[in-house]
Amino acid sequence: MKETRRKFLKAGCIAAAGTAVAGGLNLLDVKAARATSAEHPYGWPVDGLDVEATQELGYLGYKGLSRFTAEAGKDCASGTFGAIVGQLQEVVGGPYSGIPLAMMQWASGGVVGFATLCGALNGAAAAIGLVCGKDDAKGFIADLFTWYSEAELPNYVPTGGTAITQSIAESNLCHVSVTRWCLESGFASGSSERSDRCARLSGDVAAKVVEMLNSSVGGVLGNPRDNNTYCGQCHYKGTDYEAGQFTRGKMNCTSCHDNVHHYKNYSKHDDDD
Amino acid sequence: MKETRRKFLKAGCIAAAGTAVAGGLNLLDVKAARATSAEHPYGWPVDGLDVEATQELGYLGYKGLSRFTAEAGKDCASGTFGAIVGQLQEVVGGPYSGIPLAMMQWASGGVVGFATLCGALNGAAAAIGLVCGKDDAKGFIADLFTWYSEAELPNYVPTGGTAITQSIAESNLCHVSVTRWCLESGFASGSSERSDRCARLSGDVAAKVVEMLNSSVGGVLGNPRDNNTYCGQCHYKGTDYEAGQFTRGKMNCTSCHDNVHHYKNYSKHDDDD
Repeated sequence: MKETRRKFLKAGCIAAAGTAVAGGLNLLDVKAARATSAEHPYGWPVDGLDVEATQELGYLGYKGLSRFTAEAGKDCASGTFGAIVGQLQEVVGGPYSGIPLAMMQWASGGVVGFATLCGALNGAAAAIGLVCGKDDAKGFIADLFTWYSEAELPNYVPTGGTAITQSIAESNLCHVSVTRWCLESGFASGSSERSDRCARLSGDVAAKVVEMLNSSVGGVLGNPRDNNTYCGQCHYKGTDYEAGQFTRGKMNCTSCHDNVHHYKNYSKHDDDD
Repeated sequence: MKETRRKFLKAGCIAAAGTAVAGGLNLLDVKAARATSAEHPYGWPVDGLDVEATQELGYLGYKGLSRFTAEAGKDCASGTFGAIVGQLQEVVGGPYSGIPLAMMQWASGGVVGFATLCGALNGAAAAIGLVCGKDDAKGFIADLFTWYSEAELPNYVPTGGTAITQSIAESNLCHVSVTRWCLESGFASGSSERSDRCARLSGDVAAKVVEMLNSSVGGVLGNPRDNNTYCGQCHYKGTDYEAGQFTRGKMNCTSCHDNVHHYKNYSKHDDDD
């Protein structure tokens, strides 16, 4: 694995050289701006990225008002992916320069409106995947997902604006996350207020990623906190079907299921046994 | 939007030139191998990709046995993303050559084991996002998601192997998809049989993407088929909260909720009213 990462890194440096020359930049400046580590094999700015600036870029990116919008498109996934990878293209260069900023735009609305995985998370996870490579990305993403599920969001307040209603998603799914905020705030899913909430949330998610990667704190692939019920507490990923280990996951069970301790109906967990 | 796509395409051609020279290839050969269209602005091989070869690559990629494994890593998301983008790197070149094949590996297990969005779908959608750009990807991905949710899968039978139990996921979520197959087959989520099912499924998903992009059939951003109940039938994305339009999505409601027509409990839809 380490060999493979070094190979990628080397390839990334070659790509950076090509990009720097093509863009009229000085290669030495680009090299000086990147630092690599076991956690960030593709390189990360030696001084990190600015958390608050990233938060604003995520918010503006959602609304189609960021300096990356022309390349990335708008909405949640391009908001987070564009904010992080766009800045890395500016500061670090390759291999980030070879990435089309619009490549995760489809993930908005929980993937083209299906409301599955939150698009802000999907775009952010793809950015982490680029920075950290195939092994070290997972712990950071697990921490990001747990934080998202448990935090009161959104936090971001745009310049000149005021704070809005917060909610706890208890889930990483768009459908659940949006519904919980709508119930808390009283605004419907098609309202401009809900859209503004998701824009602020995109800022928060992008900022959280930068905060983690700047510090390298996080990245331990663990389970969600003990005070939440999650799939793996009962359905650990064993091979014994009869012992009830036939499913998998680290989502909060009660975000979909009523009764997780006494059930007959496998798919709903609703009935007492 | 059209302007932006042309700009990307032009950038892609420049990147292709650099890659072709760096790799010792003839630029004209690379150019001849790609065709661009409104649906595939980054280029797609003029003769398409081979559906069956892609299916096998998706399957082998999951198992860590494909020619792209060293770069992509293994498991479901790298299985689909690696099979499609890896071949495009070989046949088309840039901008695909600048994409680290491992960048979606974190999506395996429904994102680092959280069991949210199926990783085979997440990797496949990212590949479609690369091929189609920010506007035209969405219709293809919507079709892919609807097909996945409704089809009996897996279909793929490896050379010398035999067919295995199929199931209908009724969902795009890893947790639900795996659980339904485990219930149908009697194998647990940690079993080698379940892993083999997901490997075959990764082959099927990668093949479906190539089938769609080869023919350009698909890509109309619509709703799931009428015979399924989905969120948007009642909760259309309006702005009127009181009319029950406070949520969103195109998932099959009954994959999570018991009773979608008579409910008191917003979050479960379980009680008669």
